Amino acid sequence: MRLHNLLIAALLLITTSVWAQPSVECWDRFELAFTHATTGNPFDVELSATFTNGERSITVRGFYDGNDTYRIRFMPTAEGEWSYTTHSRVRAMNRQRGKLIATAPTGNNHGMVSARGTGFVYADGRRYMPFGTTNYALALFRPQTQEKTIESLSKTGFNKTRFCILPKDFPCPEEEPMSYPFLLKSRTKGADGKEHFEWDITRFDTDFFQNLDHRIEQLMALGIEADLILFHPYDRGMWGLDALSNEEHIRYLEYLIARVGAYRNVWWSLANEWDLVKTKTREDWKVLTRAMVAADPYRHLCSIHGGTAVYFDYWMDEFTHVSIQDEGPVFSSTASATLRQIYRKPIICDEIGYEGNIRERWARLSPQQMTYFVTNGLLGGIYVTHGECYRNPAEKEFVYWSDGGELKGESWRRIAFLRQILEEAPNAPMMADISRDEFTSTCGEGYYLVNLGKQILSSWRFNLPRSNGPYSRPKAGTKYKVEIINLWEMTITEYPELFEATEVIDYRVYDKQHRDVRLPDMPYLLLRITKVE
Amino acid sequence: MRLHNLLIAALLLITTSVWAQPSVECWDRFELAFTHATTGNPFDVELSATFTNGERSITVRGFYDGNDTYRIRFMPTAEGEWSYTTHSRVRAMNRQRGKLIATAPTGNNHGMVSARGTGFVYADGRRYMPFGTTNYALALFRPQTQEKTIESLSKTGFNKTRFCILPKDFPCPEEEPMSYPFLLKSRTKGADGKEHFEWDITRFDTDFFQNLDHRIEQLMALGIEADLILFHPYDRGMWGLDALSNEEHIRYLEYLIARVGAYRNVWWSLANEWDLVKTKTREDWKVLTRAMVAADPYRHLCSIHGGTAVYFDYWMDEFTHVSIQDEGPVFSSTASATLRQIYRKPIICDEIGYEGNIRERWARLSPQQMTYFVTNGLLGGIYVTHGECYRNPAEKEFVYWSDGGELKGESWRRIAFLRQILEEAPNAPMMADISRDEFTSTCGEGYYLVNLGKQILSSWRFNLPRSNGPYSRPKAGTKYKVEIINLWEMTITEYPELFEATEVIDYRVYDKQHRDVRLPDMPYLLLRITKVE
Repeated sequence: MRLHNLLIAALLLITTSVWAQPSVECWDRFELAFTHATTGNPFDVELSATFTNGERSITVRGFYDGNDTYRIRFMPTAEGEWSYTTHSRVRAMNRQRGKLIATAPTGNNHGMVSARGTGFVYADGRRYMPFGTTNYALALFRPQTQEKTIESLSKTGFNKTRFCILPKDFPCPEEEPMSYPFLLKSRTKGADGKEHFEWDITRFDTDFFQNLDHRIEQLMALGIEADLILFHPYDRGMWGLDALSNEEHIRYLEYLIARVGAYRNVWWSLANEWDLVKTKTREDWKVLTRAMVAADPYRHLCSIHGGTAVYFDYWMDEFTHVSIQDEGPVFSSTASATLRQIYRKPIICDEIGYEGNIRERWARLSPQQMTYFVTNGLLGGIYVTHGECYRNPAEKEFVYWSDGGELKGESWRRIAFLRQILEEAPNAPMMADISRDEFTSTCGEGYYLVNLGKQILSSWRFNLPRSNGPYSRPKAGTKYKVEIINLWEMTITEYPELFEATEVIDYRVYDKQHRDVRLPDMPYLLLRITKVE
Repeated sequence: MRLHNLLIAALLLITTSVWAQPSVECWDRFELAFTHATTGNPFDVELSATFTNGERSITVRGFYDGNDTYRIRFMPTAEGEWSYTTHSRVRAMNRQRGKLIATAPTGNNHGMVSARGTGFVYADGRRYMPFGTTNYALALFRPQTQEKTIESLSKTGFNKTRFCILPKDFPCPEEEPMSYPFLLKSRTKGADGKEHFEWDITRFDTDFFQNLDHRIEQLMALGIEADLILFHPYDRGMWGLDALSNEEHIRYLEYLIARVGAYRNVWWSLANEWDLVKTKTREDWKVLTRAMVAADPYRHLCSIHGGTAVYFDYWMDEFTHVSIQDEGPVFSSTASATLRQIYRKPIICDEIGYEGNIRERWARLSPQQMTYFVTNGLLGGIYVTHGECYRNPAEKEFVYWSDGGELKGESWRRIAFLRQILEEAPNAPMMADISRDEFTSTCGEGYYLVNLGKQILSSWRFNLPRSNGPYSRPKAGTKYKVEIINLWEMTITEYPELFEATEVIDYRVYDKQHRDVRLPDMPYLLLRITKVE
């Protein structure tokens, strides 16, 4: 058990008394618990606390967690002493005061991720590049399935995953959610064999949410961001939970923020395929988004995801980044780069189709094509999410993308390899000479990645564009090292010769000796070209 | 002289008296003139008129036109009787009342163009698809050059052209503007040989603007929209007219609206390459754009154009459409279609490079490439502007794109041919199966255009996507005619056989006999596939 978990465990013992200066790592979770029995709906009890550190002041909502227990969770956003006061109409939970010390983050705690320009950074300034996957039912199915998913994630290079909170109607496996975010009052089978679920939508199922907390914590320990899908169109009349009013849904969002807002790795994805949710309009999504952002004291990353090539109003200030389903933008790095120029925010293609063997065309990309799309997007300066849809129907296997379980594909390893390459670079890639050179990306002065993609070439004439994004241009006489990276084979081979740049000749520089780089006649090569001091 | 010009000539005789019910075509220009001598700056005299037709009420600004003459111009936006009242502190121009009859439009008067969805329509509902070109100095150089440009435009299929109002520093030919929008007080040569221009920026040069009026009228008679470039970065310190304050520039915009706002074919392009104007920020452009739209009672089409791949905040309500400089979006129709999905407004690539033979890479597209880019954009559901940059430096020839004069290139004919094809179609094209099928565009039920582009194929397996944009999907048993359109040769050849659609097989339909369309092994083919009743 890690130190901060121990601390949280200790803090759980606090009820209405105040301890002497507990401490917690900055960006970790501090928690207060209160015991109180109410005759009414305990979810209606208002409870909050204001945490203050110098001029910083953060007010967080408390929440009911079952068994007469109320909790207040807080994530310190700066090191140092924080003092707090609680607010409630319940006297025993009102005006409780205390202090805590937020200590320096340790280990893989780099703080919350936020958007900066067209990229992301951790609170400590470290670059965060999302290499995400998709596990819709990560926190929905049987515990052993959930555990298997977490375990498989721990072996990959993924640092983000998308998953749902509301139940999803999966055709397979014939597993169904163990519990639901809302309180299930009864479940009956009609004469037509169709199940009818009766809910108390004024109450939440705390078992469900305790499990969700646990999964988010597990992901946090692995350094994986939890991109929570708050709504989706996969209810299909089975549970009716997508058909509540905006007010009822906002109550759900506020409960969620009170519970999991103090987890630094949480992102809000307002919806998956918002346009396919027939009970909501574009205007409704704006209402829900604004409510979500207004209720979130931390400003967690927030976006919304649509159907194929359906774009939301991502220019709204509420959206920290763009989250889309569309393969058009990853057909080439130039196409990716155009979106980046348009939005001037980080862009994540959160579905470009998935590697798999399923009949549906969005679920049958070859591992090569999946890798190719991810590479195109990343080198064009955007981010691309993985998913995997292999199924052997006879065996009723899990489909990793929806159900979780174990990875079977081949692209995830290449994506991990690519992550390593891009994290080594001084800056995230972008096109060196936008809309003019489709293959050359720059990561800074004297640092290029040339994406040869599906071209099979025997040799490549050494050349670089005069333009180098916002960085210094290549200078005549500079010597460059070339490494041939085979993305499919996951090998890096240093080329034995150095190249020396000419003056600019018609917008480009070449090697003074007019030399080529000899290549293996293979696709999916990436050339890493770096200045030699 | 056309009837409406006669009427305008007659109306020019009106001073402060009121005639009996003059009439003018709806969307044509109605004009009142007043004679008044002022001791102050005549451009400071405030004058306006309110025109009323039932519940419609439009207030337009008047303007000073030199020689003690003030004018009020008005474009009726609906047929029927309009009454007006003038407003001014000058007694002789105040509270002048009168009426006019707006008659039904005739000839090529289809009214003002406005944006509808991702396309454009004339006021009478007719579809307008911009097939534009670029003539920066159309109204700036010697009259004989201007006449030559107008004459050459009359022979093409272009229905829009972009041109500048502020002087442009052209390296060639060594011709310079005949007059300027602002009053030139003096022009002196410094010891360093550099010319110094001294302006009275509180006064406009009415000769300049009378010429501008004339050119806009000539274009209107040809059915060509005048996309006026209001600012640009090509002053380069020579005239200093881009370095005025926003207030001074707004005065210029308001004068312009008062003068040319009553021309139905006028569009506002706030700037060419706004980001290269070093005297203005993105915020300044928003200020100027808002002022322009607020002052325009007609809501003429309005956009702003940036440098390569520099995108403005086109989601602002002030922008009726997107006007960009970027070739990335025309690399493929899929790339074009992505932008359309993002903005949900009409998009015009107002520079993708130009056909030409100049060293600069933006001015040396082959006519084939120019045609290819235009075709890709149009079939992806956006619009693409032509330009031509041929120069023989020894002869100091005009460069059509900047100076005007005569066309020398080869793409303009193909663009006219393409215009004819697209205007015949029931709807403007869009991708039939976005982000999945890169080649098939739909223009409605049973009406497809398949863009084979640079592929050279001996045959093409007859097939259509199941998806058909917003239109009915192909039905099994439907018979289709195929026409092979050679865009480069400008020929249309009907294929001798009909094809009959299968049921959907894996997202597509094929011919029941599995037949191919035999093709000439040539690039730039477009297949027009239409349902046979």
